[in-house]
Amino acid sequence: MNLTHLDEQNKPKMVDVGNKAQSTRIAVASGIIEVGQSAFDAVIANRAKKGPVLQTAVIAAIQATKQTSTLIPMCHPLMITSVKTDIEELPELPGFKLTVTTKLNGQTGVEMEALTGVSIGLLTIYDMLKAIDKGMVIKHIQLEHKSGGDSGDFNR
Amino acid sequence: MNLTHLDEQNKPKMVDVGNKAQSTRIAVASGIIEVGQSAFDAVIANRAKKGPVLQTAVIAAIQATKQTSTLIPMCHPLMITSVKTDIEELPELPGFKLTVTTKLNGQTGVEMEALTGVSIGLLTIYDMLKAIDKGMVIKHIQLEHKSGGDSGDFNR
Amino acid sequence: MNLTHLDEQNKPKMVDVGNKAQSTRIAVASGIIEVGQSAFDAVIANRAKKGPVLQTAVIAAIQATKQTSTLIPMCHPLMITSVKTDIEELPELPGFKLTVTTKLNGQTGVEMEALTGVSIGLLTIYDMLKAIDKGMVIKHIQLEHKSGGDSGDFNR
Amino acid sequence: MNLTHLDEQNKPKMVDVGNKAQSTRIAVASGIIEVGQSAFDAVIANRAKKGPVLQTAVIAAIQATKQTSTLIPMCHPLMITSVKTDIEELPELPGFKLTVTTKLNGQTGVEMEALTGVSIGLLTIYDMLKAIDKGMVIKHIQLEHKSGGDSGDFNR
Amino acid sequence: MNLTHLDEQNKPKMVDVGNKAQSTRIAVASGIIEVGQSAFDAVIANRAKKGPVLQTAVIAAIQATKQTSTLIPMCHPLMITSVKTDIEELPELPGFKLTVTTKLNGQTGVEMEALTGVSIGLLTIYDMLKAIDKGMVIKHIQLEHKSGGDSGDFNR
Amino acid sequence: MNLTHLDEQNKPKMVDVGNKAQSTRIAVASGIIEVGQSAFDAVIANRAKKGPVLQTAVIAAIQATKQTSTLIPMCHPLMITSVKTDIEELPELPGFKLTVTTKLNGQTGVEMEALTGVSIGLLTIYDMLKAIDKGMVIKHIQLEHKSGGDSGDFNR
Repeated sequence: MNLTHLDEQNKPKMVDVGNKAQSTRIAVASGIIEVGQSAFDAVIANRAKKGPVLQTAVIAAIQATKQTSTLIPMCHPLMITSVKTDIEELPELPGFKLTVTTKLNGQTGVEMEALTGVSIGLLTIYDMLKAIDKGMVIKHIQLEHKSGGDSGDFNR
Repeated sequence: MNLTHLDEQNKPKMVDVGNKAQSTRIAVASGIIEVGQSAFDAVIANRAKKGPVLQTAVIAAIQATKQTSTLIPMCHPLMITSVKTDIEELPELPGFKLTVTTKLNGQTGVEMEALTGVSIGLLTIYDMLKAIDKGMVIKHIQLEHKSGGDSGDFNR
Repeated sequence: MNLTHLDEQNKPKMVDVGNKAQSTRIAVASGIIEVGQSAFDAVIANRAKKGPVLQTAVIAAIQATKQTSTLIPMCHPLMITSVKTDIEELPELPGFKLTVTTKLNGQTGVEMEALTGVSIGLLTIYDMLKAIDKGMVIKHIQLEHKSGGDSGDFNR
Repeated sequence: MNLTHLDEQNKPKMVDVGNKAQSTRIAVASGIIEVGQSAFDAVIANRAKKGPVLQTAVIAAIQATKQTSTLIPMCHPLMITSVKTDIEELPELPGFKLTVTTKLNGQTGVEMEALTGVSIGLLTIYDMLKAIDKGMVIKHIQLEHKSGGDSGDFNR
Repeated sequence: MNLTHLDEQNKPKMVDVGNKAQSTRIAVASGIIEVGQSAFDAVIANRAKKGPVLQTAVIAAIQATKQTSTLIPMCHPLMITSVKTDIEELPELPGFKLTVTTKLNGQTGVEMEALTGVSIGLLTIYDMLKAIDKGMVIKHIQLEHKSGGDSGDFNR
Repeated sequence: MNLTHLDEQNKPKMVDVGNKAQSTRIAVASGIIEVGQSAFDAVIANRAKKGPVLQTAVIAAIQATKQTSTLIPMCHPLMITSVKTDIEELPELPGFKLTVTTKLNGQTGVEMEALTGVSIGLLTIYDMLKAIDKGMVIKHIQLEHKSGGDSGDFNR
């Protein structure tokens, strides 16, 4: 199997995408934060009053998608054309599921951007709830869907 | 329960830590990436030859700890004094466990720094293996230990 | 009058604050964005439904305070200990007034941090309303109060 | 009126511009800083000797245009192709007027880039003069002209 | 001779490249760090054990190419499509030579990106060896090759 | 000899400086850019008219010192308290020598900050002259002086 991000001397490289075709790339990633009942209830109670915990997480997620190439060493700088988010309340866990959808017309995919948005968005929820609950767990950060590009579509 | 990061109008704020005592703060966070057998084998084979996949992840994790206050909106800028990492191979999953330990002498804790390092380190492994396996899942990002500060120690 | 940020050859320098006393520094800055009636009404109507326009502005303002030394060339990197915001609706203008309060225990003041937070917060409101109104004007960005440090207190 | 930056659940989103036509986009923004007579005279006297106050402001303004998508949460990352500035001395105010012109061939406009450049440029003047005058006021930050794109031209 | 980065009033500007043709741009830059024998031997001994000194330098170099427009004030933001590195051991100096190759399909060249990558990569080697040797010297940072664009090819 | 930035598994780490004594740290670094006669003459002629080439380099150098911990992976975030620069014209080379002096009261040195400032400052001169001369060479980037801290003073 081919480790595409390494050169012939086993040094990391930024893969050459300059000859790839331009296409519309879409990626959808999601992740879950499992929180204690008190923390969950605090967010739900707060939601009625402008919901700044989840709003802050959404904004952090969108901003993080734009920092992906700064954070992940071999990622290309990209000009994302769209970022959308979805937050689902999971009262039975209890917890929250964050989904981030990124789009680009370009030569390489936007999976890392979507995954980075999910990760930072969930960490932001953690940050805003950690005075209540330090035992929260972030899990199931994963690619849900990807389209565009030579490697074909992916659907979990 | 108290949402400490919100003001009386339910707007986010950066909590005032100016009157907290200076103390030595330590945080240990960990997380796991579950990968396919092919991807796992590629990393292990590569490890014999300088191991740049895991080395890149470690460097990305350390650098990310320094970007925490840029990424997580209500986090304070901090002057971390130490970052250490550990990567454990999990051949039975298969996958990898990344642990990040952060230290600071200061007025607020470094949990978010450790958790951000773990998240970005695992995303870097994902990035370097995604040509082999798009179904990888990041999970169990969690605080393992925290000491220092008024809220007392935490051990999972 | 002394241009403190220039050296003897008229080149910019970062002023040496290393011998200044540590003290608690507080700065309060404010600014106004004047918007059209339609844009104002859209924000007010939206406020009832979680208010993301103003919430986004507040988050952008807080994050910008942390980028001040990156943006203003001669500013020192600082570890702000607190950032609070206030948004006042001005129905008669119509418009919005944003106030940012920053705190630090350190060797130099946090006026630029408060002023940068106000500026970016107001630009964020502009961004979110510009599809409705391109004629909005940002004005009266100014220091309201400053305390701490050798130069004494300032109150407008 | 439509708040384009919000989704159907009143969460902020980065608007999808992927289907917009590529066109040449130009934006011109301006703003004024009103300063005391002593501060104004110091800049004018200094201008004869290389003028680093205003040169620093110009450089900060140009660099800030490139940080716009980091600072304004819902802004798209863009590849600006040109940034020009103009500084006008206003001896009767007294003060200075800074104008920033940005250009792009792309799918969305560069108004926020020009406005951000103006804001940070004026804050830089404030920073370099604040040892002389803390009462300075930044005002009239506004879009002067915009061309390109579906929404048509704008001229104040 | 023409200082292209200055406007008619001798203020810096970001040159307008909006009317330049799109072409494939390649730049190769290199530089050398001369180190003491002990430092050289430490790296060579370490190379057998995963080589993290040089691996870290390579990663820092690649990441720095992506920060060029943030660091060099008049540089355009660019979407580099490829970054490759080469490290040559120079036992007779003793020292190390770092070469960085950058590529882009675009309207302006990537020389500054390659040169910035070389500079930061060499500084990273310095950082990791400075406990052994503080007298190291970085030298011969230079453009080796450039192709694409109106100004023609350059070969040292 | 000890590679302090590596852990017992040969992975990079950020060295723990939390137990080091606070002291006043000073570092002075310098470097030279050798340019062609035409480029040198252009800068000198321009110097009479506000000198924006060298002013831009100085500002870039100062700003870069503040980005050091972002650029050099194992560097600690620091709160520099002073940055000064000096530019010397070298008509016989011809070229320019840039010196950067950094200061800090803290637990670790500021050599990397001074060296990073020199490197980015010289690259900025390169950028502004590259339309005239692509053969310029940056050399002799080196530490001139260091004081403070356990490892004692260094003077070249």
